[in-house]
Amino acid sequence: MPSFQTVRGMRDLLGEEAQALTYIIAKARETAALYGYKEVITPVVEPLELLSAKSGEEIRQRMFIFKDLGDRQVALRPEFTASIARLATTALKNESKPLRLFSVGSVYRYDEPQRGRYREFWQSNFELMGSGRPEADAEIVLLTDSLMKTLGLQGYAFKIGHIGVIRGILSQENVDEKTQNTILQRMDKKEYEEAFKLAPTSRCRSMLEGLLTLKSGDCFETVEKIKSYVAGCEKAEVAAENLSEILKLIVKSGCPVQVVEPAFARGLEYYTGMIFEIYIPQLDIALGGGGRYDRLIELFGGEPTPAVGCAHGIDRVALAMQTQKATTRGEVGKRVLVLAVNESLKVEALKIAQMLRSLGVTVEFEVMGRKMAKALEDADKRQTDFAVIVGERELKEGAVVLRNLAERKQTIVPVKELIEKIKS
Amino acid sequence: MPSFQTVRGMRDLLGEEAQALTYIIAKARETAALYGYKEVITPVVEPLELLSAKSGEEIRQRMFIFKDLGDRQVALRPEFTASIARLATTALKNESKPLRLFSVGSVYRYDEPQRGRYREFWQSNFELMGSGRPEADAEIVLLTDSLMKTLGLQGYAFKIGHIGVIRGILSQENVDEKTQNTILQRMDKKEYEEAFKLAPTSRCRSMLEGLLTLKSGDCFETVEKIKSYVAGCEKAEVAAENLSEILKLIVKSGCPVQVVEPAFARGLEYYTGMIFEIYIPQLDIALGGGGRYDRLIELFGGEPTPAVGCAHGIDRVALAMQTQKATTRGEVGKRVLVLAVNESLKVEALKIAQMLRSLGVTVEFEVMGRKMAKALEDADKRQTDFAVIVGERELKEGAVVLRNLAERKQTIVPVKELIEKIKS
Repeated sequence: MPSFQTVRGMRDLLGEEAQALTYIIAKARETAALYGYKEVITPVVEPLELLSAKSGEEIRQRMFIFKDLGDRQVALRPEFTASIARLATTALKNESKPLRLFSVGSVYRYDEPQRGRYREFWQSNFELMGSGRPEADAEIVLLTDSLMKTLGLQGYAFKIGHIGVIRGILSQENVDEKTQNTILQRMDKKEYEEAFKLAPTSRCRSMLEGLLTLKSGDCFETVEKIKSYVAGCEKAEVAAENLSEILKLIVKSGCPVQVVEPAFARGLEYYTGMIFEIYIPQLDIALGGGGRYDRLIELFGGEPTPAVGCAHGIDRVALAMQTQKATTRGEVGKRVLVLAVNESLKVEALKIAQMLRSLGVTVEFEVMGRKMAKALEDADKRQTDFAVIVGERELKEGAVVLRNLAERKQTIVPVKELIEKIKS
Repeated sequence: MPSFQTVRGMRDLLGEEAQALTYIIAKARETAALYGYKEVITPVVEPLELLSAKSGEEIRQRMFIFKDLGDRQVALRPEFTASIARLATTALKNESKPLRLFSVGSVYRYDEPQRGRYREFWQSNFELMGSGRPEADAEIVLLTDSLMKTLGLQGYAFKIGHIGVIRGILSQENVDEKTQNTILQRMDKKEYEEAFKLAPTSRCRSMLEGLLTLKSGDCFETVEKIKSYVAGCEKAEVAAENLSEILKLIVKSGCPVQVVEPAFARGLEYYTGMIFEIYIPQLDIALGGGGRYDRLIELFGGEPTPAVGCAHGIDRVALAMQTQKATTRGEVGKRVLVLAVNESLKVEALKIAQMLRSLGVTVEFEVMGRKMAKALEDADKRQTDFAVIVGERELKEGAVVLRNLAERKQTIVPVKELIEKIKS
């Protein structure tokens, strides 16, 4: 007998959980349409080389890697950005910029399973390529805001940072890129002490430590403090100014920014500029995040192309919606059971079922061959609205019995008027 | 520089191809709702044991199999039915019957890539569990018909057979199950000679060969011929009678049946009853198919549960739609470019963009910092309908410039009336 369990960290999603996931995906797709993002579909299985190029050591170690039957080193995608960057350097390389791309699907990471963290999880992903300007960064944050709003989430807020500020300091201090990446990974995990130990000079170390002291309750104040703090460190200055401009655009557009975090880093190595995450007060895991990655497309052999993007953790958004009791389903129409009183009327009953479906009614056809009382009882348990009972006598007059299951009332209704009675 | 190619047999779907796929998925989901099928989402990665239990030797050899970091033997699902049968014996085992389940997603088979055949492909999958009656078989065929119809396909038709007839003959002749499976696999590939050679007796062999002679231009006639042919072979007789009943239900419900094929077999081992496939005249690959599998759930440790299901090859349906030039997208709304004439108006322009999006308009915001003429030229190329130009002077009066890009005309419009002018 085969194993009945799903693979550790993988889940079956049923009922409301499945409904929530498809609902959020539909809303993400709507958001993509409203912002002019074109949907692309990339494979779950990708060359290991592509996925590991710039994802960061930590994600590399947590990928599902294997060889296919043709002896190719492949892996299940741990995120979308590498695949989308590949598109930008191949099939879409001659498209006019800006290029706005949307994807949604499952991604895979070999993490320790826990609440809101699974080995197969779902993301909606938005990438805006071709613009290095603050309004591009702002757009990615704003569309995340729009998505959260349309999903009915309450009290969500953004945490914003800028990798350019930290990398600016590290470059000024001649820290090589590999060490920069390691330091940023540690900072991402809030292991500040271990991160700062890796600084090659005490001056560099104290510069990094100082970042932790700059956070203030007011976002704009924090940015001003960062600006003064990095004065004289040219790249970091430019980054801080850029952060200031982005912040202005998003806050003035009504986006709720909780905090500007000067020492904020994210796990992916490819970020070069603004980064952000989004949270609700009731959960301590990010519902999504993203940032600017101006060098990835070039690294993949394309023209130098500034880019910014984000991903939303659909499972986590679903958890947030569940926590806040937000609606996770669209409008539901009437549900009808159609049954024939005897075998010889099955074909007629099937035709009526098909007619109702063609008019948009959900019809469950009686396929169990049960006695009528039993079938009606079961339909009632399933919260079916109506039963359409197809009987010899009524059918001769072009009619059927329409039973309102909740009210336990039934009337004879001409087949032609059935849809009207059901929908009213 | 990382590899730019997708893994052999895997594809990036862009533009109209991606649109067609999401369109077909949306229509499959609508069909599921109309027939009362509840959506479930199962993992792409499953225990090898589960997937290989009853899928058939051929599919077993073409699975993507690997060990995860916890040393578990896993595989990428080559189809949905095993995962759904797992659900029926675990999380959903106490649900009242009938149980109607819908799934959609990517599946994986290591096939030689060719037109309409890929290593990652997409399926919509419907399973109806708990009924062994002909109306259940009919429902699965009818919902496939509804889906093809709603997608606008022309001239499609069903090929119908019954595994029970062939297995009935083989059982009567004491052919063991393993040999039965091998014979059926060969028959599936139309390698009849090699298949029939495996028959242990010459009587068995000639019984099988005789099946090939029964096909007639008229479906009901073919079924009658099958009935007479297997007279005396009890299990095959019951199967032929069952096929006759199913055929009557579906044909009388208006379903186009091209042919009843007495020697028709399908690759999956778990089928026990009616099987079908659907074709359009322009393509020689099946767009979908399915059948009855009454023993799978029992084999998985559940209560004996009759079941019938089907899967539709979404990529192939897309190919069929492309071949027949069917529409693969829903209604498209107006598209607007919003741009500010100078930097200081960016926030105001962003607000107008957000307002329009909240009213359902697709808005691309100018993020390239281009001169107006250039931005408008690009918008025109992208077939944008309108440009909303946010300028100092008009904004003071609460207005903006609305430019109709196709007509190259522009007027000053109060912000409040913008949506009306755009939608009209």
